[in-house]
Amino acid sequence: MSRWYIDKAAQNDIAVSCRIRLARNIEGLPFPNRMTADDRRELNNRVKDAILNSNTPFSKSLKYINMCDIPEIQRYAMVERHIISPEFAAKTEECGIILSQDESISIMIGEEDHLRIQVINAGLDLKKAYDLAESVDTLLCDTLHFAFNKDLGYLTECPTNLGTGLRASVMLHLPALENSGEINGLIDSISKIGFTVRGMYGEGSKSLASLYQVSNQITLGISENSALENLLVITTQLIEKEKQARQNLDIIKLEDICWRAMGTLQNARILSSEEMINLISRVKLGKSMGIINKECSPIKILIEAQPFMLMQAKGAMDAADRDTSRAAMVRELLL
Amino acid sequence: MSRWYIDKAAQNDIAVSCRIRLARNIEGLPFPNRMTADDRRELNNRVKDAILNSNTPFSKSLKYINMCDIPEIQRYAMVERHIISPEFAAKTEECGIILSQDESISIMIGEEDHLRIQVINAGLDLKKAYDLAESVDTLLCDTLHFAFNKDLGYLTECPTNLGTGLRASVMLHLPALENSGEINGLIDSISKIGFTVRGMYGEGSKSLASLYQVSNQITLGISENSALENLLVITTQLIEKEKQARQNLDIIKLEDICWRAMGTLQNARILSSEEMINLISRVKLGKSMGIINKECSPIKILIEAQPFMLMQAKGAMDAADRDTSRAAMVRELLL
Repeated sequence: MSRWYIDKAAQNDIAVSCRIRLARNIEGLPFPNRMTADDRRELNNRVKDAILNSNTPFSKSLKYINMCDIPEIQRYAMVERHIISPEFAAKTEECGIILSQDESISIMIGEEDHLRIQVINAGLDLKKAYDLAESVDTLLCDTLHFAFNKDLGYLTECPTNLGTGLRASVMLHLPALENSGEINGLIDSISKIGFTVRGMYGEGSKSLASLYQVSNQITLGISENSALENLLVITTQLIEKEKQARQNLDIIKLEDICWRAMGTLQNARILSSEEMINLISRVKLGKSMGIINKECSPIKILIEAQPFMLMQAKGAMDAADRDTSRAAMVRELLL
Repeated sequence: MSRWYIDKAAQNDIAVSCRIRLARNIEGLPFPNRMTADDRRELNNRVKDAILNSNTPFSKSLKYINMCDIPEIQRYAMVERHIISPEFAAKTEECGIILSQDESISIMIGEEDHLRIQVINAGLDLKKAYDLAESVDTLLCDTLHFAFNKDLGYLTECPTNLGTGLRASVMLHLPALENSGEINGLIDSISKIGFTVRGMYGEGSKSLASLYQVSNQITLGISENSALENLLVITTQLIEKEKQARQNLDIIKLEDICWRAMGTLQNARILSSEEMINLISRVKLGKSMGIINKECSPIKILIEAQPFMLMQAKGAMDAADRDTSRAAMVRELLL
C-alpha cells in the first residue's frame, strides 16, 4: 500500500482523497492549550504506551515520532503531505505523532485536542477510512479513558467538534465547475446545509489547482454514519455536476489548455509552486478526460514539488533555487 | 540548393537572410502606373522573350509565371516567402514574374518599376546575392534597353531609387537588443546615416519575432560596391552588439524562456500566427545560443506556418481552423 498521493485513484478520479479525523481527549488531563510541560510529557507517554503495550499486529504497524527530532523542513513536508496541521508543525513544545508506515494513519498528540486521529486515503472510500480510524479509536480507548458525556458525546476543546469529534472530508478536483463559475453558488448552498468547502490545505487556505475539500460541519446530534452518508451524497452530487460541466467544455480549447500545461511542465527551467499547481491541475483534467494519454501521476507531482517536500528531497534552499530545482524535478517526473 | 528559409544558415545565424533588389525600367515605355493594358502586355512579352531567347543554361533555369494563373492563396504565400511584394500580389492587371527554381531569383514585371530584380539568400553573403542579381541584370540589358541617364544613373518611378536602383537588405534576428531596449537607439542612429530598419515584411510592417530588415536608403551618388560595403559594416556592428547583449542575458531565465517556447510549440492545439512567430523567435535564439540542441528549423517553420503558406499546403480555411491546423503543422515539424 502506497501513500495516498501516489495511489492511482488520486491521479485520475475527481475525488482525489478522503480523510477522517476524530478529536479525542483524555479524562483528567487539561486541554493542550492549558497544559504544563509535565502534562504534555504525561500525555505523550500515555499515548505511546497505549500503542506499544497493546502489542497487536496492528499496533506494531504504528510508530511514535517525537516531533522535536524532526527538522523544520521535514515537519512542513508532513503538512504538505496532509499528515499534520500547520499549527502542529509550528509547535515548539514537546509533542509527538503516531504514524503508520504508509502514512494513511496519523495521530497528532497535543494539537488542539489531546488526540487527533486521522486516516487519509486516495479516492472516495470514506467507509474504509472511517473503519480504520475507528479501529485506532478502539485500540486507544481500551487503555486511555476518553472524556465523554452521555448528552454531549466526546468532549473537545472547540465546541464545533463536540459530539462525534468527527470531521470527514473529501478532496475534489472541480476545474470545470470552477471554469463555469458554478462552484461559487454550490459552495453557498452546501454551507447552508451543514458542510464546508475549503481549499487544498484546509481552513483559510485558497483553492489551488481547482482542488476543494468538502467536509461535514455538524458533529452534535448526528451519528457518525449519518454524517458520512450525508457527505457522500453531497460529494456524489458535486462529482456528477463536475462531469456534466466537463461535457460542456470546448474540446479543442480544452486539449489546447491541457497539452500546453504538459508542454510547460516538461520544459520550464523556472517553475514557481503556484504555477506548477495550476498546470498540474490542467494535466490532471486532461488525464481524467482521456485527452492526455501519457503515463503520469499529477497528484504525486503536485505534492512532491511543494516547497518543503522539494527541500526534503534536495536540501534547504531559497525560493529562487527552489523554482529551478522544482522545474528540474517536474521535468524528470514527466519524462 | 534549397529555398532561403529552409537553408541551414537561416536557422542558426543572427543574419537570417540577405536580399538584393535592382529597380530597372525600359526606355520608351511609360512607367507601370501610367501603362495601358497593351503597354503591360508588351512589357511582359519583352521581358519573357529576353529571358527565353537568350538561351543560356542560366536563362533556362528561369521560368515565366503569369500571375493571372496563380490563385490568391498562392500569391500571398509568395509574399510570405518574400518572393513578391504585397502590392504586386494585390494587382488585378495582367502581370508576371520570372522565377528561378529555388526561388532565390525573382523578377516582378510591372510592379512600381518595369522590373524589380530580386535575389534572396540565407545568411549574410551580400556579395554572392549581388553578383547573381548583376548577372540577371546583364542578361536582360543585352536585349532590353534600360532607361539610364549619365548623371542620374538608372531612372526609376520613385526618386528614392534613382541612381543604382539598388536596395540591399539584411534580415537580422535581434532579440537581445530588443530585450535590452538598445534596439530603438540603434535604429535612430542608423537612420541618420542613410539606412532604414524595418519589420520582417518590409515597409510599414511591425517587427515580429525580433526580426529586423536593415537596408541602404541612398541610391544616388554612391556606387553599388560602396552601398554594399556600408551595409555590411552596419550589419556586422549590429551583429556584434547583439552578441554582446546576449552575453548579458540571465542564462537560467533564458533557458526557461526558450524551452517553454519549445514546449508550447510542441504541445499547443490552437496557435495563432502571432504567438507562433513570438515562440519561434525564442526557439531560434535558444538554438543559436546552444541552449536548444534539438534538430529543428525555426525559420522554415516561421515561414511555412504563415497563414497563406499554411492554406497553400492544407487548403483554404477560416482563421479559427488555421489556428488548429497551424498547431498541428508545427507539432509535426517539431516532432
